[in-house]
Amino acid sequence: MISMILPLTFLILERMRLGLLCGHLTLRNSECDLMIHDEFDWINKIKPKSHYQSHLLEGIGDDASVYKTDASYDEIICVDTLVEDVHFKKTTLSPFDIGHKALAVNISDVAAMGGWPVFYLVSVAIPSDWSEEEMEELYKGMSSLAEGYKMDLIGGDTVSTTDKLVISVTVTGRVEAGKRLLRKNALPGDIVFVTGSLGKSAAGLALLLKRSRNAHFTAREKRLTIAHQRPRPKVEEARVINSLNTRGALNDISDGIGSEAHEIAEASNVSIELDESSLPIAQELQSVDTAKRLEWMLFGGEDFELVGTVRENDWELLSEAMKKEGLSLYKIGTVKEGRGEVWLKKEKNGLVRLNKKGYNHFKS
Amino acid sequence: MISMILPLTFLILERMRLGLLCGHLTLRNSECDLMIHDEFDWINKIKPKSHYQSHLLEGIGDDASVYKTDASYDEIICVDTLVEDVHFKKTTLSPFDIGHKALAVNISDVAAMGGWPVFYLVSVAIPSDWSEEEMEELYKGMSSLAEGYKMDLIGGDTVSTTDKLVISVTVTGRVEAGKRLLRKNALPGDIVFVTGSLGKSAAGLALLLKRSRNAHFTAREKRLTIAHQRPRPKVEEARVINSLNTRGALNDISDGIGSEAHEIAEASNVSIELDESSLPIAQELQSVDTAKRLEWMLFGGEDFELVGTVRENDWELLSEAMKKEGLSLYKIGTVKEGRGEVWLKKEKNGLVRLNKKGYNHFKS
Repeated sequence: MISMILPLTFLILERMRLGLLCGHLTLRNSECDLMIHDEFDWINKIKPKSHYQSHLLEGIGDDASVYKTDASYDEIICVDTLVEDVHFKKTTLSPFDIGHKALAVNISDVAAMGGWPVFYLVSVAIPSDWSEEEMEELYKGMSSLAEGYKMDLIGGDTVSTTDKLVISVTVTGRVEAGKRLLRKNALPGDIVFVTGSLGKSAAGLALLLKRSRNAHFTAREKRLTIAHQRPRPKVEEARVINSLNTRGALNDISDGIGSEAHEIAEASNVSIELDESSLPIAQELQSVDTAKRLEWMLFGGEDFELVGTVRENDWELLSEAMKKEGLSLYKIGTVKEGRGEVWLKKEKNGLVRLNKKGYNHFKS
Repeated sequence: MISMILPLTFLILERMRLGLLCGHLTLRNSECDLMIHDEFDWINKIKPKSHYQSHLLEGIGDDASVYKTDASYDEIICVDTLVEDVHFKKTTLSPFDIGHKALAVNISDVAAMGGWPVFYLVSVAIPSDWSEEEMEELYKGMSSLAEGYKMDLIGGDTVSTTDKLVISVTVTGRVEAGKRLLRKNALPGDIVFVTGSLGKSAAGLALLLKRSRNAHFTAREKRLTIAHQRPRPKVEEARVINSLNTRGALNDISDGIGSEAHEIAEASNVSIELDESSLPIAQELQSVDTAKRLEWMLFGGEDFELVGTVRENDWELLSEAMKKEGLSLYKIGTVKEGRGEVWLKKEKNGLVRLNKKGYNHFKS
């Protein structure tokens, strides 16, 4: 009988008493642990006072957001999640950095499709050891990066959790209709390029893990830690590449070029040959042991540079267009016939096959 | 010096050795705890073999998804997050139910804007005590619901976490250009309606908390637990409401009608008077103690019915249109001049003010 279970509804009633802080039925008292004491105040705090995008019809405040579309653009959408103590630690990233990075990784995905970012939505599960000030910093890290792209925050969800902070950011973007850039567009004979040097993020992480983010760093070390904490998505670069109407593949480097080059090679059903001596070496990594540096460069990840391919005949055109905008571009290899393999051309030992799963397999 | 920190990079290298299971640099070994042993296999498992929506250009497989737009429709977007042991327990919801519910709450938000759902993206942080089979069930719970709406899964992120499962679902939808339904559209004189009886989800949760989901339930109890575990978003109802071109407010009931009516009253700057004797009582709750039942009906939440307002002159029209489609609609109150208050008209004691924060405040 229903009436028999009523004494056991205290959990529900308790949650009612506490207010509907995070929405929906909850099973436990954890919402009262949440450092955000009033959801409505909190939403008002993070809700933008104005918006950049004139096609936004309804932002935060109703059940969902609504925006106008324009058939001259295709819509891009992606989502990425960062978990405390898995993808970052409070000792490696400040709350501001975490916000910056959670948004940056998604903007980078939009760039890798040849587009530009427009809106973002933020879902965050917050444990009780995070203060409201820290959460505000986290949102500032996002809004400060978003501003540069005139992106609007248009939705999200704030819930409590019992353990680690989990932040999930959804980004929408646009690209001219039919002009998306895909991994599968590489063909044998193409030149492989990268938009910047690799390995700085991994080197920065190593420094942060050793000393923690509040330690003293030299100017050179600081540039490495910043590369890890505040990566710049390569939207400008992607837009230049897309503007030239050349055929080619594009990918962003979140997992290391070893893995990303495999994604292009597999999607395009070709092989990719990277030339070790052509890989640009960051000035900050010049003094590092060569083998370690190569590990970081090939498999470090989170540099968020773009790796792509372009027809040999279009290389000069692309190279000049980038130079004109003050952006870098390096030729690092070539596309060959194949079935998804990636090779590294060593200066002395010829070709070594790269395993997408990382350096250890690569060595064995 | 950079070279001094090299011995401490084992964390990074260890992760490299383990493979780039979840993307990005990770700080700890937890990825090897993850029950999903190969990310590529996993993505292939959840990646739809075909898609329903012909305007989808790129689904899962590149850096982001891309779809065509059509200026005759506005885009709707929302995200909602469920956390294990906060919003559900493994003893109250099966993995299939969790998937169903995580998607349903978002579809309900799209319906509350007067639109229909089109695409979804799923971000999930998985602790090590979840098996691959459970995760497959969770995705089946989503795809089975999505199928009915011809929604396509077009993206997401799968990461590991150390403690509780966190699932964040983003849903996009469409509504005819300029025809979104908002909370702020209520005016004094409007009739307040609801699309179904309330309180069943809360009653179902109470049963599940007492006995756990594998217990024996009578047919009547089963209907209550199902109301909690597998709510049906009211998309058909929303579409009928939207088709009539009448002015009115609309909201879905995730937090209880007490809270949702406040949202309409505040957004529209009116007061709402709910008539206790008009609230439809579920057959399954007829035998429940009256005071307890009223608590569930007003503040239980998660019924995912729609609450809205319509011009008095349009009530018959709307009511007939719903009946024609075999859908229910109940008149439960009226809109008055006011400043965001919600009142409950008691059969004997006149008007009692409802506090949006729940029953306890309401009582005091």
